[in-house]
Amino acid sequence: MSQFLKNHIRQVTDLSDEEFETVRTFFTQKKFRKRQFLIQENQPVHEIYLIEKGFLKSSVIDDSGKEHILQFAAPNWWISDFAGFFKQEISSLAVDCIEDSEVYALSYTSLTLLCSEVPLMERFFRVKSNFGYVALQQRILSLMSKSAKERYEDFIRQYPGFIDHIPKQLIASYLGVSRETLSRLYS
Amino acid sequence: MSQFLKNHIRQVTDLSDEEFETVRTFFTQKKFRKRQFLIQENQPVHEIYLIEKGFLKSSVIDDSGKEHILQFAAPNWWISDFAGFFKQEISSLAVDCIEDSEVYALSYTSLTLLCSEVPLMERFFRVKSNFGYVALQQRILSLMSKSAKERYEDFIRQYPGFIDHIPKQLIASYLGVSRETLSRLYS
Repeated sequence: MSQFLKNHIRQVTDLSDEEFETVRTFFTQKKFRKRQFLIQENQPVHEIYLIEKGFLKSSVIDDSGKEHILQFAAPNWWISDFAGFFKQEISSLAVDCIEDSEVYALSYTSLTLLCSEVPLMERFFRVKSNFGYVALQQRILSLMSKSAKERYEDFIRQYPGFIDHIPKQLIASYLGVSRETLSRLYS
Repeated sequence: MSQFLKNHIRQVTDLSDEEFETVRTFFTQKKFRKRQFLIQENQPVHEIYLIEKGFLKSSVIDDSGKEHILQFAAPNWWISDFAGFFKQEISSLAVDCIEDSEVYALSYTSLTLLCSEVPLMERFFRVKSNFGYVALQQRILSLMSKSAKERYEDFIRQYPGFIDHIPKQLIASYLGVSRETLSRLYS
């Protein structure tokens, strides 16, 4: 039943079966329904989530009530309010499900203990974080230097499976373009 | 002479003096002049850099010849083309000096060996990367949801020492606003 988790970690680190048996005890499997919130704004952030099934998003609502989507998460992606989690502060983001979803949850305490008990997991999270950092840099450059059309084309190319799962208005919000602009790009 | 490096690492990890003596051997100290390039576009990326003195920037030139600044780096910050470095691909960014600068350079091979020999450094780089990731998420939200005026005010508040070191046109490029808009905000 934890084959998914084992495969996910082994994409980065050469964990033995024995080490994995320790690792899995730190995770909790959870199921959420479409539209259900894993994290709400202005709450303590207890966990980060690895997606096994489903689609989720993290977003913020600005003062005018507009939703800005920071991240989508598909199977094999991690999601949380990472600022709230790593700084152990209250959340500024909300995380909710675009579809019914199944996740592996890891608490802050478990993350710390896990990295002490299985040092290879320290490496796993360093490498994952490095690549996450790089992906965010590329998104910033895209937001700064590319047109709506280019951003949309990049999105389709990078994440070909996403448009079947994610409503267009959410993709528009993620790309920072209006729903109308996106509709023109689709046609 | 390596007190700076020791202090920097001890902000995150409780490294012993003995461990630090190993750590320092992996770093190379380098000096660069104002306007000198540490990394040029379309080249292999060999090193990441911790700034001891000076100011640097990473940027990309778009097809129309416009420079977009991804990052500034002040003392105690790290800079590189992280995508090129972590993926061991050629660079898409350039990194150059806004002022004469002194840095600690760490090569890809040294990073890997260092994390093996001193496991606490794996933790150091994980924690640094986690906080870097969080800072980038906040920059994305700022680019998506805030006005030029708000972005400028956030920048001044977050990095009060920067405006004395960085020409206004570079700050405008970093914030994704025109030089004219920024001048109105200054006055």
